[in-house]
Amino acid sequence: MNRWIAWLPALGWVSTYRGADLPKDLVAGLMVTVMLVPQAVAYAMLAGLPPHTGLYAALLPLLAYALFGSSPTLSVGPVAVVSLMTAAALGALELADEQARIAAAALLAVMVGGFLVTMAVLRLGLVVRFISHPVLNGFLAAAAILIILSQLPALLGLPAVQGEPYERVIGMIAGLDEAHLPTLLIGLGSAGVLLLLRGFGGRLLEFAGLPQQLATLAVQLSPLIVLVLAAWLAAAWLPGVNVVGAVPEGLPTLAWPSADAELLRQLLPAAVLIGLVGFVESVSVAQALAARRRGRVEPDRELLGTGAANLAAGVSGGFPVAGGLSRSALAFQVGAATPLTGVITAGGIALVLLLFSPLLALLPLSALAAIIVLAAVALIDLKSMLSVWRFSRADGICMLVTLVIVLALGIEIGIVTGVLLSLLMFVWRSSRPHIAVVGQVPGTEHYRNIFRHEVRTSRRVLAMRVDESLYFANTRWLEDHLLAEVAARADLEHVVLVCSAVNDIDASALETLTSLAEALADAGVTLHLAEVKGPVMDRLRRAGFEDALGEGRIFLSTHGAMATLDPETFG
Amino acid sequence: MNRWIAWLPALGWVSTYRGADLPKDLVAGLMVTVMLVPQAVAYAMLAGLPPHTGLYAALLPLLAYALFGSSPTLSVGPVAVVSLMTAAALGALELADEQARIAAAALLAVMVGGFLVTMAVLRLGLVVRFISHPVLNGFLAAAAILIILSQLPALLGLPAVQGEPYERVIGMIAGLDEAHLPTLLIGLGSAGVLLLLRGFGGRLLEFAGLPQQLATLAVQLSPLIVLVLAAWLAAAWLPGVNVVGAVPEGLPTLAWPSADAELLRQLLPAAVLIGLVGFVESVSVAQALAARRRGRVEPDRELLGTGAANLAAGVSGGFPVAGGLSRSALAFQVGAATPLTGVITAGGIALVLLLFSPLLALLPLSALAAIIVLAAVALIDLKSMLSVWRFSRADGICMLVTLVIVLALGIEIGIVTGVLLSLLMFVWRSSRPHIAVVGQVPGTEHYRNIFRHEVRTSRRVLAMRVDESLYFANTRWLEDHLLAEVAARADLEHVVLVCSAVNDIDASALETLTSLAEALADAGVTLHLAEVKGPVMDRLRRAGFEDALGEGRIFLSTHGAMATLDPETFG
Repeated sequence: MNRWIAWLPALGWVSTYRGADLPKDLVAGLMVTVMLVPQAVAYAMLAGLPPHTGLYAALLPLLAYALFGSSPTLSVGPVAVVSLMTAAALGALELADEQARIAAAALLAVMVGGFLVTMAVLRLGLVVRFISHPVLNGFLAAAAILIILSQLPALLGLPAVQGEPYERVIGMIAGLDEAHLPTLLIGLGSAGVLLLLRGFGGRLLEFAGLPQQLATLAVQLSPLIVLVLAAWLAAAWLPGVNVVGAVPEGLPTLAWPSADAELLRQLLPAAVLIGLVGFVESVSVAQALAARRRGRVEPDRELLGTGAANLAAGVSGGFPVAGGLSRSALAFQVGAATPLTGVITAGGIALVLLLFSPLLALLPLSALAAIIVLAAVALIDLKSMLSVWRFSRADGICMLVTLVIVLALGIEIGIVTGVLLSLLMFVWRSSRPHIAVVGQVPGTEHYRNIFRHEVRTSRRVLAMRVDESLYFANTRWLEDHLLAEVAARADLEHVVLVCSAVNDIDASALETLTSLAEALADAGVTLHLAEVKGPVMDRLRRAGFEDALGEGRIFLSTHGAMATLDPETFG
Repeated sequence: MNRWIAWLPALGWVSTYRGADLPKDLVAGLMVTVMLVPQAVAYAMLAGLPPHTGLYAALLPLLAYALFGSSPTLSVGPVAVVSLMTAAALGALELADEQARIAAAALLAVMVGGFLVTMAVLRLGLVVRFISHPVLNGFLAAAAILIILSQLPALLGLPAVQGEPYERVIGMIAGLDEAHLPTLLIGLGSAGVLLLLRGFGGRLLEFAGLPQQLATLAVQLSPLIVLVLAAWLAAAWLPGVNVVGAVPEGLPTLAWPSADAELLRQLLPAAVLIGLVGFVESVSVAQALAARRRGRVEPDRELLGTGAANLAAGVSGGFPVAGGLSRSALAFQVGAATPLTGVITAGGIALVLLLFSPLLALLPLSALAAIIVLAAVALIDLKSMLSVWRFSRADGICMLVTLVIVLALGIEIGIVTGVLLSLLMFVWRSSRPHIAVVGQVPGTEHYRNIFRHEVRTSRRVLAMRVDESLYFANTRWLEDHLLAEVAARADLEHVVLVCSAVNDIDASALETLTSLAEALADAGVTLHLAEVKGPVMDRLRRAGFEDALGEGRIFLSTHGAMATLDPETFG
């Protein structure tokens, strides 16, 4: 049984389901449905696809995730960033018509799903660790700007402009006098009401007598309220406003999306990056929520869950999906206890598809654009970006470079550049480790940096501490520094390398230490080590390093070394 | 003055030259000349260029290095690996005739020189640290195999075969019955005599009464002896053997090599890699020799020196050069005191060009091939390769992958793959740091791994030590491990993260620690830190991390934390 649960977690929660959880899951599931419907329709629009595909991308994926995923609260389905990336990937293709576009989106979802499931089988869930927070922050900010740019024409009733981001800004400014006023009215009105409800709605409702929690929940459902109002306004008073239009009724039919080799090749890089970015977001959300209940998330299981969700989206006419932050937070808040929440949400979406399609047709596009734009603004975490910049210039540069390159050259190249740059900066930093000459703090057996503390040193014995694992990229740095210190001390007889912060030694470092010991011996100086950690010592011993040291020894403590080598001063 | 010396070290040694050094420099310079002449001619052949270009590549570069370089013993000029890489770079071009080939080689040298000087100006000398010893070992072994394969036809008098390495082996075996016997005789004879002289010559000469040092020196000059013998044999007894043939007399003329944009573009990757590899070899040799006299080498000055040498080689009809190990070791051994040694060697080469060109024409190609093959065999450091494999599987894999890819796909892609792979492996390793739950060693204030030692722990307080700097690639690993330990302990109230081995914390790690603290607080657990290093503490304080910890504290020592948080057990 346990072996099966590893690959089909649903067996776990279904077999142990407690009746007491049912009311919680039911409430959470319905609440998420009400939040999900407008988001699904809006993000389909963001992806450049008809609105029903957004609902298709919510229905089956929720069931698939409930079967294979592990988080009780993660709500998979259309999310802003992944929809933007889908739009970018489809935009790069030459597609004949909308039908071809829908088919390509479904194929992309299948590819994303296939990629994630493959990663799950290879247990590569931890690969996401290579996308650092600053790179993700920079990417999300750039994505938000791209999302807002893509939605402003719909929001303001402007003619759509193609081209680079800056060209689109210029085009929109030039086209401002062509704005369709009723559209602009509904768009800005929706945005204004959303902002107001979010800012003051809760306090207002509390003032009106609602319990605090209920008031907060009502505010989170404000998009639905706004959409209903906007649809009514548009239908009754502003007939020229663009609306969603005819939505096919009924449930999606299952079909494996067709593909030729050329299309697969063109979509592959996008599929890999959408998979990675969507997965990073999903697992971050799931992990953050799980930790608040002393729970945890298995990245490899999440890979399987989000992979299955994308496969389900692909075979049911949807587009790539991921775990959404706002919906998952809502599910957590109202106490979703098991993945049954997702099953119930899926049921709600099915009901909407079966019964309310005609109503969806009335939604004004500019109100949907307002929802997207506000969601995009929430992606820009200015506070976190500022604190990254203050905390570390290197991290800040990675963040800015990612942001600028995503805007200037595109999403895919921007993310790849950011990841490579952050790896390079890490290696660069660790290739220039902090190295300190240390001396004895009088009256103790502690040895500290001679430049930071009043310490006692020896003319005959030099003690140096290196604050980094020794590996190929920093051995030469160590060699340079050590030889410079030796060259500056004519009376020197011994060098003690203090290894208390050396967590690992690689083959290059071993070779460098060996040749250093030989070269120093030729110059009449003996190299010793001190405070070598257990695992490192095991490896050095296996490699016969003690022989290579010649006269040199490996001391347990720095003080032991100094007392032995210069007993007059330290004995 | 000091500022000028930084960029023209010759001002330093010329202005302080002591007469007592002159005899040493004179002897060393002449000895190196005698060793350099056969090598220069042989490596020109390896590069696929006429023999006089090898001497051109020795003459001016020696003077340029004496002006701009800093090592008194480094002997720049043609070296085996760089000549092989030059041959590979030229082989990839479509060149009309030998004149075009010579011009392209000179252009390549100018490009290598320009690249190195640019690196010097940007002070990027330490970039070479990213080529690890195992990658260099693997590359040199593969280069040696390629060199041997390229010289076997000349050595054995076989028809030359083109194609992939394995095709050339098959072709040579198939052509064995066409071997030209006199050529084969001279080739194998030269190799045999060289091996014998190297193996027993020293002892033989000592036995014959020579002082040990003189005997050792005589052996190092054995290539010259062998070449003279081979030339005499070929001229007097074996007329069918291929010889070098007409060598232009006189000194090289200076000319800036012509270039078009297409040729520059084609040669650029090769120029960068030849520059890097040649520089790594030069600086390793210079550094190893300098350390034996308690001296040191400034990588940025060496960049300038080797860069100037390559520019000089390019404008005087030579090809790319580097510092040679065998010649530099000889110069060191006979006591070269200043860069004047190089000037004297250059004078010797000029004399050879002016007076002995007709004699060079008589050298049999198969004897030169024997010298190259034996030099190549010395590049394969089997002992070091075995010890790398034994010491670290990861390093061993990098070494093997580099070796195999250089042989299978080419020199450039092989080196790049090796470097990237070794960086990736380092990051991978540091992304999965050693994390230990620690407890108190009874009777002490030491805290050690609960799985390695008999220690005392608390049900209410968990102490974890992480043995790595915290950065984006391992924060999730830490988070996973920490949350798993917390999830497994129902009574837990406090977590103490022991940071004694944390040398750095980046923005991602800060964000993770902050959200960890919040999530744990929601779960009723307080996060504390202990033994945070000074520089890390400074950064955390600047970022206001102490506020983010909430109830949590930052303790000086692990024991202090345990005694405060669980006084009943540890107080």
